[in-house]
Amino acid sequence: MITGNDPILLTPGPLTTSPATRQAMLRDWGSWDAAFNRMTQTVCADLVEIVHGENDYVCVPLQGSGTFAVEAAIGTLVPRQGCVLVPNNGAYCARLIRILQRLGIAYVELPLREDEPVSAAAIEDAFNRDSRITHVAQVHLETSAGLLNPLDDIAALCQRHGKSLIVDAMSSFGALPIDLRKGGIDALVSASGKCLEGVPGMGFVIVRRSVLDAAAGRSPSLALDLQDQYAYMQKTTQWRFTPPTHVLAALRCALDQFIAQGGQPARGARYMRNCAALIEGMTALGFEPFLKPAVQAPVIVTFHAPRDPAWNFADFYTAVREAGYVLYPGKLTQVETFRVGCIGAIDANELHNAVAAIGRTLACLGLSVK
Amino acid sequence: MITGNDPILLTPGPLTTSPATRQAMLRDWGSWDAAFNRMTQTVCADLVEIVHGENDYVCVPLQGSGTFAVEAAIGTLVPRQGCVLVPNNGAYCARLIRILQRLGIAYVELPLREDEPVSAAAIEDAFNRDSRITHVAQVHLETSAGLLNPLDDIAALCQRHGKSLIVDAMSSFGALPIDLRKGGIDALVSASGKCLEGVPGMGFVIVRRSVLDAAAGRSPSLALDLQDQYAYMQKTTQWRFTPPTHVLAALRCALDQFIAQGGQPARGARYMRNCAALIEGMTALGFEPFLKPAVQAPVIVTFHAPRDPAWNFADFYTAVREAGYVLYPGKLTQVETFRVGCIGAIDANELHNAVAAIGRTLACLGLSVK
Repeated sequence: MITGNDPILLTPGPLTTSPATRQAMLRDWGSWDAAFNRMTQTVCADLVEIVHGENDYVCVPLQGSGTFAVEAAIGTLVPRQGCVLVPNNGAYCARLIRILQRLGIAYVELPLREDEPVSAAAIEDAFNRDSRITHVAQVHLETSAGLLNPLDDIAALCQRHGKSLIVDAMSSFGALPIDLRKGGIDALVSASGKCLEGVPGMGFVIVRRSVLDAAAGRSPSLALDLQDQYAYMQKTTQWRFTPPTHVLAALRCALDQFIAQGGQPARGARYMRNCAALIEGMTALGFEPFLKPAVQAPVIVTFHAPRDPAWNFADFYTAVREAGYVLYPGKLTQVETFRVGCIGAIDANELHNAVAAIGRTLACLGLSVK
Repeated sequence: MITGNDPILLTPGPLTTSPATRQAMLRDWGSWDAAFNRMTQTVCADLVEIVHGENDYVCVPLQGSGTFAVEAAIGTLVPRQGCVLVPNNGAYCARLIRILQRLGIAYVELPLREDEPVSAAAIEDAFNRDSRITHVAQVHLETSAGLLNPLDDIAALCQRHGKSLIVDAMSSFGALPIDLRKGGIDALVSASGKCLEGVPGMGFVIVRRSVLDAAAGRSPSLALDLQDQYAYMQKTTQWRFTPPTHVLAALRCALDQFIAQGGQPARGARYMRNCAALIEGMTALGFEPFLKPAVQAPVIVTFHAPRDPAWNFADFYTAVREAGYVLYPGKLTQVETFRVGCIGAIDANELHNAVAAIGRTLACLGLSVK
């Protein structure tokens, strides 16, 4: 039992939400009721607007975690005879490959280091080497290390080559600028509990209407059929299957705050300040970020573990949690690291406090960082 | 904007939850954190215990609506060369068939009327007619009409014939007695937001451990792979993909209340009182239940629409909602009906009040029932 305030989550989602967002879950909503269905419609319209997709794109919300929406996008939008290029610089790219394998869809992996963003040139080489490629599945912000991939370049390239681009924008949507008007992106996937600062429980796909319409009957899954989900919602205003009503109400409230605070530019600027405060403070404690500044996204930062032989992440985690902050383990395959998120309903003061707590913990555990 | 109290949901889920259950969502939880993962474990243990599966069964929670868990159970547990018998007396049975069609699994439909429970004898006839049948997918409580199918008889029959039985217990779990110790059931599917009185957003499958273990690598979907979900949770204590943390916290709180109130027998008895109050009151107003009392489950009641030519469900719905109660439309294919749920954190007083509100609404709209 926790007394007093809960710890702050410095994690990539679920994250710390605002009290208003959580309080929006204090009401029950009927799933057939017009008031609830209007809420679904305004959420979808706002999500499309964040990425400037008003003209050609629709938003399809989906029950489940973000991965459910990623699998739904791939299973619905890629024809069985398609072939998907997956630039791979982390665990979420690898997950795309696992999804393609399960669905029995052909793919080509473009292997990269975990600190190496993909380049449009490398993707173009892959197009030239393998003419089977019809689609690209691209993780925008690889949360494994916190790495930013150059989405605009990739979208422009896909447009030039006539390849269909599906973007996993799970950890970037709402925080980093994405502009669908520039062209080249067919689908963009994210979820409620990331940079929009809702609670976890639903994903969504912003998809080009013409691409979605052409996908009728293609999904090998009923639950994960995006086209059927959208067509039913258009016809009835309702979700096909029981919606996560409270999660949607929380997202509506989180979006109201997002808009009132200044939308994506303001959200991105706050996270930049958080990230700068975190890196500056941690560097002063002797910690070394895993990524170079140029490719570090302001969402989650990977730090090398201290070289001290007494280092043990579980102990460090527990002690920092006692001090009020929840960290996140590393997810890299080669190097021992840990991660600290800088997203959620928190500001730079919270990151300053977190760094101070980490400093006190190091002293308390007798750990040296270098 | 609603001022004052929200309307009471007389719907089959989402339903009206208790204030304590909703308040459990006022905290954020880290998905890697031990406290959250202990909560997952206790929820799963309690769910197994409700149906007396402690010895041979495990609970696999899954993100998404109940239908996601139903598809996951079928896609994970039925081998590709299997053949599934589906007794069909309503829309949720028909949904099982749509799932089987999408998954490309052979099936045999046993067609029934919407007011006709399946009999073990009819299933046995189907076994004898078609030796390809390996599985039965049975809806326990068909919410389309509110019809109860004889689960114990069907389970005993499946056990005798060596058929694997998968039960959609969406609307019955927690309210009606189900005892896995009697044998014959391999998997039981339900969700957070039904008779357990949690909020919607996760499903779960109580599955015989040996059947789950034998299903490794079989699911055509990554997101809906129950075996992978379970194996990962056993290894790490964590969910594979972001869990609906607030939904789980609400379910934990709802289960605490369920247990404190006396478990399934008490829940079932309260719903019986609610259902009796509803039917008695509605009958006094002149409404006629669609089902015979012997096959009416105490969860949702279908009433024939009034014969009055002025009857319009949408208008009636809106007027009753104004009076504080949210009804549910009918889902039958042949007859014009509407439905009233009697589940959720409500008692017979609430149903008496609802009937009174319906009576006032009829008078106000000038509708005659007979």
